[in-house]
Amino acid sequence: MNYCFTRGLSFCVLLWGVTSTVNARAADPLPSWNDGASKKAIVDFVEQVTDEESSDFVLPEERIATFDNDGCLWSEQPVYFQLQFAIDRVKQLASEHPEWKNQQPFQAVLEGDKQTLAKAGMEGLAKLVMASHAGMTTEEFAGTVRVWLRTARHPRFERPYNELVYQPMLELLAYLRDNGFKTYITSGGGVDFMRVFAAETYGIPPEQVIGSSIKTKFELRDGQPVIVRLPEIDFIDDKEGKPVAIHKFIGRRPIAAFGNSDGDLQMLQWTAAGDGPRFCLYVHHTDAEREWAYDRDSHIGKLDQGLNEAKKQGWTVVDMKQDWSTIYREEK
Amino acid sequence: MNYCFTRGLSFCVLLWGVTSTVNARAADPLPSWNDGASKKAIVDFVEQVTDEESSDFVLPEERIATFDNDGCLWSEQPVYFQLQFAIDRVKQLASEHPEWKNQQPFQAVLEGDKQTLAKAGMEGLAKLVMASHAGMTTEEFAGTVRVWLRTARHPRFERPYNELVYQPMLELLAYLRDNGFKTYITSGGGVDFMRVFAAETYGIPPEQVIGSSIKTKFELRDGQPVIVRLPEIDFIDDKEGKPVAIHKFIGRRPIAAFGNSDGDLQMLQWTAAGDGPRFCLYVHHTDAEREWAYDRDSHIGKLDQGLNEAKKQGWTVVDMKQDWSTIYREEK
Repeated sequence: MNYCFTRGLSFCVLLWGVTSTVNARAADPLPSWNDGASKKAIVDFVEQVTDEESSDFVLPEERIATFDNDGCLWSEQPVYFQLQFAIDRVKQLASEHPEWKNQQPFQAVLEGDKQTLAKAGMEGLAKLVMASHAGMTTEEFAGTVRVWLRTARHPRFERPYNELVYQPMLELLAYLRDNGFKTYITSGGGVDFMRVFAAETYGIPPEQVIGSSIKTKFELRDGQPVIVRLPEIDFIDDKEGKPVAIHKFIGRRPIAAFGNSDGDLQMLQWTAAGDGPRFCLYVHHTDAEREWAYDRDSHIGKLDQGLNEAKKQGWTVVDMKQDWSTIYREEK
Repeated sequence: MNYCFTRGLSFCVLLWGVTSTVNARAADPLPSWNDGASKKAIVDFVEQVTDEESSDFVLPEERIATFDNDGCLWSEQPVYFQLQFAIDRVKQLASEHPEWKNQQPFQAVLEGDKQTLAKAGMEGLAKLVMASHAGMTTEEFAGTVRVWLRTARHPRFERPYNELVYQPMLELLAYLRDNGFKTYITSGGGVDFMRVFAAETYGIPPEQVIGSSIKTKFELRDGQPVIVRLPEIDFIDDKEGKPVAIHKFIGRRPIAAFGNSDGDLQMLQWTAAGDGPRFCLYVHHTDAEREWAYDRDSHIGKLDQGLNEAKKQGWTVVDMKQDWSTIYREEK
């Protein structure tokens, strides 16, 4: 028995283990999804595109699936989690910025004045984001996000923010990957913010995270190359920006797309308009008790036009309250 | 013997086949590389980072390798191939643009006036690129590139442009992938231009191609979503832009980088400055007979500062004439 053969055999044993795991999961790949139309639509689609005998078979390299993040993979209430990061960061940096005491929207943050903060609008938000997200190297920024995720707690659930991820969506991501899909995040959130936790939390590596970005600059500091974050918007990955970013980063059209708001509509339209089998899904927040209930009138994650289009096009709309037996992943 | 077991077995047989192929190639993974320092440096690096017993072992997901394209994977003389595409395209579109007869740099293209064309500078080039690369949907553009690759022939070698790819570099790409590397292109060339042939020519899928880009816009045309190419530069993936793009698209630092000009220097510096084992390589064009010989004074693919830095840092410099037994891939 030569070396190659031994190596082949041990690979087989390893692979057999993997295969068994896949088959065990295949018993019910989506245990946190209640039986119903949503679950059936997902499973039917996956079986259709992976069946080599079917005329709808899709080659593995074309099995691209894109997911929004805020409100689709994790919660987005009472404020976008990244905005909470910016707020916490501004409080932390306040001692180095005495001028913030009399300067909006920083003053509102420091005084906990939610009304003024709400009125600050996009321009105010941008100021907070720039103050907390720019002016440092990419590695320093990642470090501040890591510390925040470890220490900050969500006000309602008193858990780290990256534990407030939806268990049914984690199962869906794993189920798609087990079936040869490449899973991407395409979110309005900051790409460098999400990349810090996406691999560990979602099993999505940095190169499959697409998001909004600020400009950066390469420079040598004492002969050491660094990439510095600049206080200038580079790209907003929302609405029409999502298909544009998908084209730019992936260069091919997804066959499945998942969102929860009007900000995802163009991504779903772009996905749906391709040739062959397509799958589009909206997560509808209907569970005020276990999570939140909001849609057409919400200023966070507004789902209005998208809901109309989903009905018209026959896309899958997840009724969180009915379709999900569990909301969040287990506490660690 | 149940279904799972049968499936496991057939997977094993399949895998055994793959394993044997890998081992057969391992006899000499780089047959077009002559024995010498360059080849040895490549093999030593790959063995070092894939040896689980070594303190230099690198996890497969961190094995990111980035390659320049023009002059590194394919030739770039007598003009960048994409510029030739733009020139050919302008000639083709001339009948729809009678005004070009008296308008530079179009007039120079139509009259074959190379002197005037050379004097047109960056601004002139930009005009040619915009006229030939913008104003259509992304799918229409890909179609024009496909037709050009099928029909255009290189003036010196009379072969399709995407056959003028370096056989030793194709072997290197395959060797790295066989060893768990993810191979990327990071080129000053247009991303949507390169994506048309990168998968078939280099085995690099669209989502691993990074390049310069023009802006695009999502819109509905008769209810059909399209992405339209706009006559406006989005990003130039050259010099300081390369590490910036690597950070933006990949989100982690390569452990190996390959280039041939000063435009790649910052990518190599960024790669070299990471922790753990690193590999940087310059292709030096030294073979006027089989390809071209140029470096410090060339206006295409100038290699001056990079050559100094390579010597200083001990990076691998490929002497094309000495190190490569074959230049181009076999004719099909």
